[in-house]
Amino acid sequence: MTEAYVIGAGQSPFGSFPNESYRSLFATAFDRALASVGTGIDRNRIDEAFIGTLGVGGRQLGLSGPAVTEHIGLHGIPTTRVENACAASGYAFRNAVTAVRAGIADLVLAGGYEIMTDMSSDHTKWWLGVSGETEWERLSGTTFAGVYAQMASVHMAAHGTTIEDLSRVAVKNHRNGAANPNAQLGFECTLEDAMGAPTVADPLNLYHCCPTTDGASAVLVANEEVANELDEASVRVSGMGASSDRVGLFQRDTFTDIPASRRAAERAYDDAGIAPDDIDLAEVHDCFAIAEIMAYEDLGFCDRGEGGRLLREEVTHPTGRLPVNTSGGLKSKGHPIGATGTGQIVEIFEQLRGEAHTQVQEPCYGLAHNVGGSGGSATVHVFERMQEDAI
Amino acid sequence: MTEAYVIGAGQSPFGSFPNESYRSLFATAFDRALASVGTGIDRNRIDEAFIGTLGVGGRQLGLSGPAVTEHIGLHGIPTTRVENACAASGYAFRNAVTAVRAGIADLVLAGGYEIMTDMSSDHTKWWLGVSGETEWERLSGTTFAGVYAQMASVHMAAHGTTIEDLSRVAVKNHRNGAANPNAQLGFECTLEDAMGAPTVADPLNLYHCCPTTDGASAVLVANEEVANELDEASVRVSGMGASSDRVGLFQRDTFTDIPASRRAAERAYDDAGIAPDDIDLAEVHDCFAIAEIMAYEDLGFCDRGEGGRLLREEVTHPTGRLPVNTSGGLKSKGHPIGATGTGQIVEIFEQLRGEAHTQVQEPCYGLAHNVGGSGGSATVHVFERMQEDAI
Repeated sequence: MTEAYVIGAGQSPFGSFPNESYRSLFATAFDRALASVGTGIDRNRIDEAFIGTLGVGGRQLGLSGPAVTEHIGLHGIPTTRVENACAASGYAFRNAVTAVRAGIADLVLAGGYEIMTDMSSDHTKWWLGVSGETEWERLSGTTFAGVYAQMASVHMAAHGTTIEDLSRVAVKNHRNGAANPNAQLGFECTLEDAMGAPTVADPLNLYHCCPTTDGASAVLVANEEVANELDEASVRVSGMGASSDRVGLFQRDTFTDIPASRRAAERAYDDAGIAPDDIDLAEVHDCFAIAEIMAYEDLGFCDRGEGGRLLREEVTHPTGRLPVNTSGGLKSKGHPIGATGTGQIVEIFEQLRGEAHTQVQEPCYGLAHNVGGSGGSATVHVFERMQEDAI
Repeated sequence: MTEAYVIGAGQSPFGSFPNESYRSLFATAFDRALASVGTGIDRNRIDEAFIGTLGVGGRQLGLSGPAVTEHIGLHGIPTTRVENACAASGYAFRNAVTAVRAGIADLVLAGGYEIMTDMSSDHTKWWLGVSGETEWERLSGTTFAGVYAQMASVHMAAHGTTIEDLSRVAVKNHRNGAANPNAQLGFECTLEDAMGAPTVADPLNLYHCCPTTDGASAVLVANEEVANELDEASVRVSGMGASSDRVGLFQRDTFTDIPASRRAAERAYDDAGIAPDDIDLAEVHDCFAIAEIMAYEDLGFCDRGEGGRLLREEVTHPTGRLPVNTSGGLKSKGHPIGATGTGQIVEIFEQLRGEAHTQVQEPCYGLAHNVGGSGGSATVHVFERMQEDAI
């Protein structure tokens, strides 16, 4: 089996861009990914692509993968469009790594995009609902905030998690996002701001919910031979894991964790041959504040019910033992559905190369955690910094 | 690299099934695929899945892969939903083979589904149009029949292809479909019927167009170790190739061929180490009659412009040198978008095992050719019959 390496990664700014198209945003992300390969690499060497997008709102609905790879000049390569709701590009990345490991491709593009801000907020709520279970969640009017609010309520009752814990997620991630020029909501907020915002779906308020976002991201995955050509340190994909689950929250046995995340993490640690304690920093799927707290627990960063404590003790702050969402996370950087998974990998890549906006000191292992829907799908990837002469 | 084998394949009936759901049709296909593994195989051994569907019409819009794999009891495995328009499950199959070749999975499910007949024909026309280029084809009112009619017109002018040639595709495929209990339009037609049908998009008439269809299909892809456990002869995936292209026909340099098909075929032959002459039978993407004629040429079965001749000389009839679409093809068997690619592989699998409805005499190599949109995407796979003691 050939090992896979990330040799380049980039994202467009995340935000609301009425003058951009999905193609122009993706081209920006791709150009930045190419530029991040210090010694440069010819785009014509890319021999396969996987593009994640939910894309049910309009624009190019069928063949929405080739629609962007052809636009950026990757003519005639096999392009697979992947849709796994908010985990679309986590899965796109998984399949890119698989193609490299299979020896089918030497250099693969994994990426994603979404345009979300051109709809009214009512339409956006409908649109996002398509990743919930259709018959009993979406068509009964349940929103995603409503589904995660149910998880938050049960988590609070079962484990004593508080509104303050939820609000600390917002404070931390907004502080990180304020340092990230690509963040949609790049401003800081106080604990009082985050405690006192208007309710969206009780107990979640506005600061406990990520925004709707336009954006794109792109990651270049290479085999060892291509990675070896480059002068710079590459980032190895040491472990990958993924899982599905029943799409509807009501169909599962638990409201206080996301079993797909737990299984994906176990598989990724096993593939990498490491334990959760080895992780130096992580980007986790904080679509709602409770999701970041559950992620700490599902990824094995702490025991069940202890997620809030990590925030209170500032373990996951940039200066803590295990910084989480140094990019600002979905909460502050933004959440353009199909672009989120590979967007998280952009941050991990920059961190492991020592080039992040909120740089953590010499991390060795980074983790990216991407969830689709309310947990019907999840991916976890573990990345490892390689010394220049190590591969 | 581990070789990949098809050890089982099945499809639901194709047709109009108002009392079925996408889940129940997929369950039928999956059960038949499992049953086709003579000595049986435990579904719990399936460790990854790829599900193709276009699915923009309703039902489960996000996470539409996990929605079916969870339904059939494959809990917690990684499921990727693939959308590449009408080539969705051709690409799902490609990625299943890749996962086996990478050693990431031992036994993978590739499949697809579509429900199309619950919409008015006007809505269906709109819905199918989403796989065309959006801004200049779909929103200007061009239908898929319209796009392929342009190809037919130019092919007729350039190469002397006739309405009779187009009609011979229908006669042959309907005769084959009449022997297939899973076919949607399982009746024969005469050349007069096929010549004299009402025009859909000049020069294409009703008999030159495939129907809209509900259906599902499923294929089990295993590594050598799993295939070796079975008593029956397996079918090896000897070659695979895929390509994208510009989504809009108007964006390409040619109207008389599908360059993505040509590139996919070259790559598949190269991967298999064979030439077009080695192919003993093929399922090709005959969404419109002209598409089957172009496929003969793109796949190297004859020179450019010679496709009509193969029909006139009955080369591609079941008794000819190179039978094509013995299942009935998209024209007679039906074309449930996401189910078509793996549905073609069901026929090739049955042929290579000697169990097809219109059985070809002892074929060694079979080919499946799946096209997305008007050629924005294509896959070609080559399959090889293995003797029981050969693997």
